[in-house]
Amino acid sequence: MKRSYRKTDMPVEQIRRLLEPGPIVLVSSRWQNRNNIMTMGWHCVMEFSPSLIGCMITATNHSFDMVRQSGECVINIPTADMLDTIIGIGNTSGRSVDKFKKFHLTPGEAATVSAPVIEECYAHFECRVADRKMLEKYNFFILEVKRATAAVWPRYPRTVHYRGNGVFMESGRNIARPEKFRPQNL
Amino acid sequence: MKRSYRKTDMPVEQIRRLLEPGPIVLVSSRWQNRNNIMTMGWHCVMEFSPSLIGCMITATNHSFDMVRQSGECVINIPTADMLDTIIGIGNTSGRSVDKFKKFHLTPGEAATVSAPVIEECYAHFECRVADRKMLEKYNFFILEVKRATAAVWPRYPRTVHYRGNGVFMESGRNIARPEKFRPQNL
Repeated sequence: MKRSYRKTDMPVEQIRRLLEPGPIVLVSSRWQNRNNIMTMGWHCVMEFSPSLIGCMITATNHSFDMVRQSGECVINIPTADMLDTIIGIGNTSGRSVDKFKKFHLTPGEAATVSAPVIEECYAHFECRVADRKMLEKYNFFILEVKRATAAVWPRYPRTVHYRGNGVFMESGRNIARPEKFRPQNL
Repeated sequence: MKRSYRKTDMPVEQIRRLLEPGPIVLVSSRWQNRNNIMTMGWHCVMEFSPSLIGCMITATNHSFDMVRQSGECVINIPTADMLDTIIGIGNTSGRSVDKFKKFHLTPGEAATVSAPVIEECYAHFECRVADRKMLEKYNFFILEVKRATAAVWPRYPRTVHYRGNGVFMESGRNIARPEKFRPQNL
């Protein structure tokens, strides 16, 4: 049975809660009436406000052209139960197949970009390409998150993190130490 | 009792094993005969070879100037048993204190940079600043890893990953699925 999350908007400056721990994400894009999805592990929070994400997409990936040409994408956070789908998407090129169909995923409408969200994921960050200066040399996109939606529950999803060589790490237990922080450093 | 790892060189193009999962790292730097350490969560693997890491260091941090002026740093991977130290380092400014002394950490000699490694950590990536183009606008350093050393055992360290608001996620169990990958996608 497929998981279905009830979602709500979250402030775009708070996406670090989901992205900073470093999970594998699924990047969905739309260009010339076609959708695509890729698996991505090389990303980085760059700023709270504007809400910026940096990410590397190999130039030979079909998604590279789709994001570059459309100037948009959605970064979706999948959960550990989707591991086989995550791997399958990474193994497949969107040049020849519609990955939404192949992996039985549901494209949903985003509010601020034409790229679809992946409904089965825990959260969606709707992004516009904000800076292309690092694109030619490093294939590095700087994205601005225009809208973020996330599941209402659980507060912390079980995510997967890639170690290379076909090995993933599953997110483990939480350790809360807010009392040890200076307030401005939380 | 402090942990002590036996370490060996690792190929710089393999640092994704330790960095891509997204752990909190400790950045050590040296400039004008003074050492410093900062806690960092906003980093990203950018290339296998040359081995590139992108990272954001807030410009008001003392470490920002030290890395910018010296053009060097070491990215150290701390383990979960060092959590109190990780938080303490993030709470303290290197302008007024020597963090190695304050947190009873041992500065070790790196081979390719003058910045010290933090001996208590699991791994060390000796880095030179490779590109400053994103520095002024985004405080974003592009670093090249010149040498990497890591503990011989365990192969996968127990790391901590930051979620904001004083909450950390500890790395959980490994899931190995190499047989599901196309070889070129491992």
